[in-house]
Amino acid sequence: MDTTLRDKLMSVSVATLATALFNRGFRNQVIQGVHPVKAKGVNMVGPAYTLRYIPAREDRNQLAEFRNPEHPQRLAVESCPAGHVLVMDSRKDPRAASAGDILVTRLMVRGVAGIVTDGGFRDAATIGSLDIPAYHTRPSSPTNLTLHEALDLNVPIGCGDVAVFPGDIVVGDDDCVIVIPQAIAEDIASEALEMTVYEDFVVEKVKTGTPIIGLYPKTKDVFTSEFADWRKAKGR
Amino acid sequence: MDTTLRDKLMSVSVATLATALFNRGFRNQVIQGVHPVKAKGVNMVGPAYTLRYIPAREDRNQLAEFRNPEHPQRLAVESCPAGHVLVMDSRKDPRAASAGDILVTRLMVRGVAGIVTDGGFRDAATIGSLDIPAYHTRPSSPTNLTLHEALDLNVPIGCGDVAVFPGDIVVGDDDCVIVIPQAIAEDIASEALEMTVYEDFVVEKVKTGTPIIGLYPKTKDVFTSEFADWRKAKGR
Amino acid sequence: MDTTLRDKLMSVSVATLATALFNRGFRNQVIQGVHPVKAKGVNMVGPAYTLRYIPAREDRNQLAEFRNPEHPQRLAVESCPAGHVLVMDSRKDPRAASAGDILVTRLMVRGVAGIVTDGGFRDAATIGSLDIPAYHTRPSSPTNLTLHEALDLNVPIGCGDVAVFPGDIVVGDDDCVIVIPQAIAEDIASEALEMTVYEDFVVEKVKTGTPIIGLYPKTKDVFTSEFADWRKAKGR
Amino acid sequence: MDTTLRDKLMSVSVATLATALFNRGFRNQVIQGVHPVKAKGVNMVGPAYTLRYIPAREDRNQLAEFRNPEHPQRLAVESCPAGHVLVMDSRKDPRAASAGDILVTRLMVRGVAGIVTDGGFRDAATIGSLDIPAYHTRPSSPTNLTLHEALDLNVPIGCGDVAVFPGDIVVGDDDCVIVIPQAIAEDIASEALEMTVYEDFVVEKVKTGTPIIGLYPKTKDVFTSEFADWRKAKGR
Amino acid sequence: MDTTLRDKLMSVSVATLATALFNRGFRNQVIQGVHPVKAKGVNMVGPAYTLRYIPAREDRNQLAEFRNPEHPQRLAVESCPAGHVLVMDSRKDPRAASAGDILVTRLMVRGVAGIVTDGGFRDAATIGSLDIPAYHTRPSSPTNLTLHEALDLNVPIGCGDVAVFPGDIVVGDDDCVIVIPQAIAEDIASEALEMTVYEDFVVEKVKTGTPIIGLYPKTKDVFTSEFADWRKAKGR
Amino acid sequence: MDTTLRDKLMSVSVATLATALFNRGFRNQVIQGVHPVKAKGVNMVGPAYTLRYIPAREDRNQLAEFRNPEHPQRLAVESCPAGHVLVMDSRKDPRAASAGDILVTRLMVRGVAGIVTDGGFRDAATIGSLDIPAYHTRPSSPTNLTLHEALDLNVPIGCGDVAVFPGDIVVGDDDCVIVIPQAIAEDIASEALEMTVYEDFVVEKVKTGTPIIGLYPKTKDVFTSEFADWRKAKGR
Repeated sequence: MDTTLRDKLMSVSVATLATALFNRGFRNQVIQGVHPVKAKGVNMVGPAYTLRYIPAREDRNQLAEFRNPEHPQRLAVESCPAGHVLVMDSRKDPRAASAGDILVTRLMVRGVAGIVTDGGFRDAATIGSLDIPAYHTRPSSPTNLTLHEALDLNVPIGCGDVAVFPGDIVVGDDDCVIVIPQAIAEDIASEALEMTVYEDFVVEKVKTGTPIIGLYPKTKDVFTSEFADWRKAKGR
Repeated sequence: MDTTLRDKLMSVSVATLATALFNRGFRNQVIQGVHPVKAKGVNMVGPAYTLRYIPAREDRNQLAEFRNPEHPQRLAVESCPAGHVLVMDSRKDPRAASAGDILVTRLMVRGVAGIVTDGGFRDAATIGSLDIPAYHTRPSSPTNLTLHEALDLNVPIGCGDVAVFPGDIVVGDDDCVIVIPQAIAEDIASEALEMTVYEDFVVEKVKTGTPIIGLYPKTKDVFTSEFADWRKAKGR
Repeated sequence: MDTTLRDKLMSVSVATLATALFNRGFRNQVIQGVHPVKAKGVNMVGPAYTLRYIPAREDRNQLAEFRNPEHPQRLAVESCPAGHVLVMDSRKDPRAASAGDILVTRLMVRGVAGIVTDGGFRDAATIGSLDIPAYHTRPSSPTNLTLHEALDLNVPIGCGDVAVFPGDIVVGDDDCVIVIPQAIAEDIASEALEMTVYEDFVVEKVKTGTPIIGLYPKTKDVFTSEFADWRKAKGR
Repeated sequence: MDTTLRDKLMSVSVATLATALFNRGFRNQVIQGVHPVKAKGVNMVGPAYTLRYIPAREDRNQLAEFRNPEHPQRLAVESCPAGHVLVMDSRKDPRAASAGDILVTRLMVRGVAGIVTDGGFRDAATIGSLDIPAYHTRPSSPTNLTLHEALDLNVPIGCGDVAVFPGDIVVGDDDCVIVIPQAIAEDIASEALEMTVYEDFVVEKVKTGTPIIGLYPKTKDVFTSEFADWRKAKGR
Repeated sequence: MDTTLRDKLMSVSVATLATALFNRGFRNQVIQGVHPVKAKGVNMVGPAYTLRYIPAREDRNQLAEFRNPEHPQRLAVESCPAGHVLVMDSRKDPRAASAGDILVTRLMVRGVAGIVTDGGFRDAATIGSLDIPAYHTRPSSPTNLTLHEALDLNVPIGCGDVAVFPGDIVVGDDDCVIVIPQAIAEDIASEALEMTVYEDFVVEKVKTGTPIIGLYPKTKDVFTSEFADWRKAKGR
Repeated sequence: MDTTLRDKLMSVSVATLATALFNRGFRNQVIQGVHPVKAKGVNMVGPAYTLRYIPAREDRNQLAEFRNPEHPQRLAVESCPAGHVLVMDSRKDPRAASAGDILVTRLMVRGVAGIVTDGGFRDAATIGSLDIPAYHTRPSSPTNLTLHEALDLNVPIGCGDVAVFPGDIVVGDDDCVIVIPQAIAEDIASEALEMTVYEDFVVEKVKTGTPIIGLYPKTKDVFTSEFADWRKAKGR
């Protein structure tokens, strides 16, 4: 992933990205119901690498399955490229785990940028303490075999009611996770960065007592020049 | 699909099949939350042919998409083999349609055995009047493009929290739909047929005043010979 | 159960009973989410006899359990007194059945007044055709062992978020089921019957064009004498 | 309401209207989770007249409230203009009734075109038998005072997750209810009528064995002239 | 708002207020499903100022709408009086934001006492760090325009299944938010304060090993004099 | 409870216990939707002592009920044996409290090992600060009388969709709570402890860059001897 793009996306919020996408007609890119296992205070950014689960069938999902070196969940953990985000379609079902601390530790060591499920993680307290961002709906101790069969890798999936295509750019902050279609990621990042500069100006103004009407969004001319001056002063 | 197998499955209930599967450790083969668009009084039986939807993204799901002769939903309708059941993974979301009356009419004309979605059909009142069994959660008028993108054909899917593999045997009655793993379909069908014979005997006995304890299940010896006689008399 | 009480309750609606109970401070006596398997056009009335399910644990809920003549579900079916209503606490979970057609047939033969679950019935299409009222949330083919363990008989339970004490009077119509505390059943029945007489008068008036304000509820004096005349004429 | 507009809307399905609206960027006009109390086989059409409920507070919602001639629920029933559809915002909560048979009878007598709630009706079996279309989520016997306080009339509301502005055109069929913004109702009706003509042609073709690809939507030229001929022959 | 009233309400818990209200027949005043964005360890107290959202319709909710100086969401932020609590009816839908950090910062600067939604906030991590209490269901990054249209100000609303009338007294602690009808706020506050004094005594007793029976509630005479002494000693 | 058993269970995670139970066919022993009021970083372990709630009926659940020294909720708090875990069946309904800080303080003083509800606690912020583990779904300020009637003690119950029999061994960590059938608690504890030793070895290996395939689960011979050495070195 391009470093400039990553840098931009590290410095904007998911909320601002959502507005930039809304502005182009994308209303449904924020993964619903998913939050950080533990807030990290820094963004997760990377292209999506996906894993699809289907409901487990008892004869295909006994503990012995994990002995298979080709088990898709294990493969996912070894094949997700460094810098990518592993996104799992767990059918929004957190009654059994999507993964646990050992697999997430392996992803961390391999340099993966983060992990997202619309189900839940087991060993979530441990996962929260690792140096890799992780997002889920809630902790869930039962092994994934109880309800989920890992089926295939890097196909388009749904995650939290959002379409995720391999290579889409995934960004998470302390609130939410958003999926940016790959083809427009550069434009969205640049636009969100511009918006962020103005929002930072707005916050400063608001903190000193300026009403928001006319300021946010900017409809009063006075703020045009004020903002230009502020921007110059800040070197942004 | 083998005619003998089909005949057996036409004459047993989904409840009895569920018990036969439970007996072998399969606890989760009944598609949850799905019922007939209109009760037909006769079973739907056929191997599964699947269609997978993911959440729709606005730029990929405008009406013009349907002009694409390779659109997977349209392809599904033309490629699902006669005698098969088209099973759709709509992520249990009936807020937009999985299909409408024109596509279902085409399936009927092509000799498809039935259609199942864990979402909803538009034109459901019309679909209910067609000569093809259809199962969904509720009527849903919005076009599928609103929420669902048809993605791929005949891959393993989830439907109503059940794993469905292409070729699994799907049976529906006026209550529910069940998915029988292909490899054990013969055995399950035979076992369910045997159970049905005994249950028919039980119903007759119960209607004439026999208590169920000892009769259902059969733990009193007296019923062994009585049942043998009844069976002979009925030629079953 | 007293015949006069039963007769009164056969001729009033659950809605009217709900209002009479509301009037005495009972806001929560209608079983939520439950409807007739098939509308019968006639009320179900009887004292409650209860069965409590807890979640099933695999080692205690194999098919062999049903061979136990003391299995509480089987006992319930043989011990529920004629004229009573069997009410089941299935924890609002219809993913597995609360009972099936054989047991409900036995209840019918034994003269039980009806059956209610806040889960679902298997063989629901058949149950709907029997001559006994049955209420549930939706058809559910999996055997109860999949999720429910029948635990004890005739203890106070919850059903559809309503408290049900053994002996409470249960009334069902084509819409809903209501639970009347035993101690006030006579009073509530009489009050509801009176309300029904007036409502019948109101419907007649409304059908001939009378506005509802002042009529329902009766706040205009003119309707007092009109109603008295109507009542006399109708002999009610 | 204009007769021509009404006639057009009487002869198209909610599904077709949903597609016409989708085509103009309206993705969310079908009221979710609401269906006919009883299918009528004919459309409900009329401008929206609205009633807003908020949660009930015990001191403001005793039975005596109904004695107030200005009670908004009662006023709604007397003030909703003939030919209009009364649409109720019950906050998607069917645990208590939105209205009962007496009020709906009064609406029928007054010539109101239909009634819609995203809650439930009491006396639903009776309402289903009346000669007025009614839509809800499920029967609900408790009086509305239990949970709902009727607050104001003919303000913009939400109903089943759809915005409803007074005067919007409401159309219901045997599947669903849709809300058409007033300003575009004529255009949408005309467009849907045109679509319906083509869909009728398509159904005929499909029933005689024509594949849908190229036909629906029409991308093969051959169907252009065929359709023109059919249309002329049918006089549509 | 009266300072004495505020002081009392600053020193009691929402749980105690709920019991005082329950004691007078108010069973439903705690906003369901809402919690602090970040626990502040101090109560939020103030009269309600309300904002009502309805579902968004695409043609009325593009980003340009915010340029309108009369946009109700923006107006709410500028018109909510200092010392009041802004309460938003977001129809319990957190799939899009009710507000973000800039608006909440403005409310803080204006001296507003707090903000409550039954939806979710965007920029929630930032909002949690501001010096103003905020309550929601979960973080939600999409702009409110995606699903919510701000419609009117300071009308009665529902929030988390509770009726909120402008001027009702809203109290939040680290657990929940409660709405006290304005007319009884003084009485409830005084009663809750008295209850709190006794509960503090109880906690001390319990920590030193006294059983709760007879103590909580106080039914043993011995505690009457003990409490009187304790109260005197503590000067409460 | 046996000290050795307790010690073992203090040093394994709920996730590992869930896998050990899954291995013996128990798929459903983790209480769903319940988490710590506040993470304690140390396990809760003890035999279950149960309290069953049913829905509250207004005439039986006024504040005066608590004056009854035999009120089951109060009795539960005084009779739950030291070292046991009080588990409450609140029918997964957190709209009213299962208990508050005074009762939980009393449990703490009495040496009870922990408290679990599938509803919610009032005074949750205070409960979180006490020196006793507590698990619920969310804070809930309304008194339990609003929705729950405490009915009986130490009967089998459901809690979060799991069967809980008195005497079952309950273990909670910072993620979840699990219920171990009493008869197999020793075996499960020993097995989980063994698994934990190997998992600790695995984590060390993974942190130094070893891929998981062949290591977890152990299918490559090389790890057999390596693990034996590691174990010896660690004295485990």
